[in-house]
Amino acid sequence: MRESIYIKYLKRIQGVSKDVLKGIGDDAAVIRGPKGLCVLTTDTLLEGTHFRLKDTGPRALGKKAITTSLSDIAAMGCRATIALISIAFPRSTPMRFARQLTRGLNDTAAKYGVTVVGGDTVTGRGPLLINVTILGNADGLRPVLRSGARPGDAIMVTGELGGTILGKHLRFEPRLKEAVYLNKNFGLHSMIDISDGLSLDMGHILEESGVGAVLYEEQIPISKAAYTLARRTGKNPLHHALTDGEDYELLFTLSKSHAERLVKKNPLKVPVTRIGHIRLDKGRGLFLKDKAGKLRRIRPEGYEHL
Amino acid sequence: MRESIYIKYLKRIQGVSKDVLKGIGDDAAVIRGPKGLCVLTTDTLLEGTHFRLKDTGPRALGKKAITTSLSDIAAMGCRATIALISIAFPRSTPMRFARQLTRGLNDTAAKYGVTVVGGDTVTGRGPLLINVTILGNADGLRPVLRSGARPGDAIMVTGELGGTILGKHLRFEPRLKEAVYLNKNFGLHSMIDISDGLSLDMGHILEESGVGAVLYEEQIPISKAAYTLARRTGKNPLHHALTDGEDYELLFTLSKSHAERLVKKNPLKVPVTRIGHIRLDKGRGLFLKDKAGKLRRIRPEGYEHL
Repeated sequence: MRESIYIKYLKRIQGVSKDVLKGIGDDAAVIRGPKGLCVLTTDTLLEGTHFRLKDTGPRALGKKAITTSLSDIAAMGCRATIALISIAFPRSTPMRFARQLTRGLNDTAAKYGVTVVGGDTVTGRGPLLINVTILGNADGLRPVLRSGARPGDAIMVTGELGGTILGKHLRFEPRLKEAVYLNKNFGLHSMIDISDGLSLDMGHILEESGVGAVLYEEQIPISKAAYTLARRTGKNPLHHALTDGEDYELLFTLSKSHAERLVKKNPLKVPVTRIGHIRLDKGRGLFLKDKAGKLRRIRPEGYEHL
Repeated sequence: MRESIYIKYLKRIQGVSKDVLKGIGDDAAVIRGPKGLCVLTTDTLLEGTHFRLKDTGPRALGKKAITTSLSDIAAMGCRATIALISIAFPRSTPMRFARQLTRGLNDTAAKYGVTVVGGDTVTGRGPLLINVTILGNADGLRPVLRSGARPGDAIMVTGELGGTILGKHLRFEPRLKEAVYLNKNFGLHSMIDISDGLSLDMGHILEESGVGAVLYEEQIPISKAAYTLARRTGKNPLHHALTDGEDYELLFTLSKSHAERLVKKNPLKVPVTRIGHIRLDKGRGLFLKDKAGKLRRIRPEGYEHL
């Protein structure tokens, strides 16, 4: 079976409820709590599909398994509060490995103010699987959806992109504080975290918002790792910045005036770059503008799992 | 590794938070929402450990995967509201199988007023795994913990027990309505759903509450299936009622006066039976009283997974 087809099926059959403001199709679901909004997300890492044990120690793996979900909560502009962690261990797993994995998970949760309240542990045949569910709180703010981009919006991104496979994919920090700060002070219209690659995740915003966009080739912040990787792959560093996955940086859109204010005096600890705009006309699709001002259409091409 | 040792380790290292009233160690976690209490539980079914595909069709499997979690919310005396469903499919899974499994999951969610708001789908090597997380709402009531049993409490159970392997383990109904009704009207002190078997789950209440109990051999409601199964196994039907798992009935304790009122006029659609009491003295352990009034200690013996 193909995941993408199955997920389209899931979207089509999903139920409706007055308490669910956003279901399948964003970084997290948005639900109405007794008072105020909550966000809820879940992520699964499966050995052989998302990681190989020979490349990743148990502690780094635990950290990564929870950080990807934390990044989803960040992408909503919300605060992460509670985690549930379920693990399927191969029967032969040594207890020492299980403890180190758990340490990576729990230490990271604690670092970001998240309490692990439960989960389920099973053992059996088959590869290691880690599932992390995180509940977040909007604290009176409006969760930022993928679907809110408006014509004329500036497109911005935190950090630098590409080449994460050289190390950052295990060491990235979820932009939780930054996201809440931006949501509170800069009236974000739409946001996503870059997990599949800039062009593919930009494509998600465009699809959900029903708009098109232009990215400025010269402005895309390319990481040192992308340059290093490009020397090995023979590809363009820009290609890596556009299509590598697992940056876990924030990609967001906001009004031009808010963008100008943010660029002028960036109060965050990470760099923020204005990399494009949402098209004013009704044209769809994603375009790259080179230094000569020439536009070329790019396909959302993304990171492929192992 | 042994699950029980790992889970003890998890309990020991779990963090504390003022927003978490109950973490690992009950049917669900109890967390403080913006206003009012929420309960949160997660359950994993793994092929080869919890089910075999040759015994269980995809639709029945989907139903079971969510019903076990719904039963955990019932065991807290709370209303189930939201579900997240994550599935790891073997790569070779036919789409038709995936759809039928999903149908079993989603139809069951809808039947009990639960909205599926998201999840994660992965494909890879290894067996089928289904993880269901459910959020519930206390609606102003107090979630019923395992730890609240008091000396002198009556011990009661819904339905009839044992022999579920003959069919009920795929067809059971989560006692959600009954649990909320009991929590609202009968001042329950403690509750659990019977997943591991009456004696083992009774043991969980006793351990968490720091008390002992006497069960009345004559009063334990033995299902027809337990009698049928006993003819095959050569064991006592009572043995099956005490130790078979997956009854998913409610086991709860409450004051004698509440219990008398409930027995006198049971407003539920399922039978409710008074099967024992929490010991008044400080003695621990679980005892069975036969018709002659003789007590014998029983070990919490439970259901063993495949």
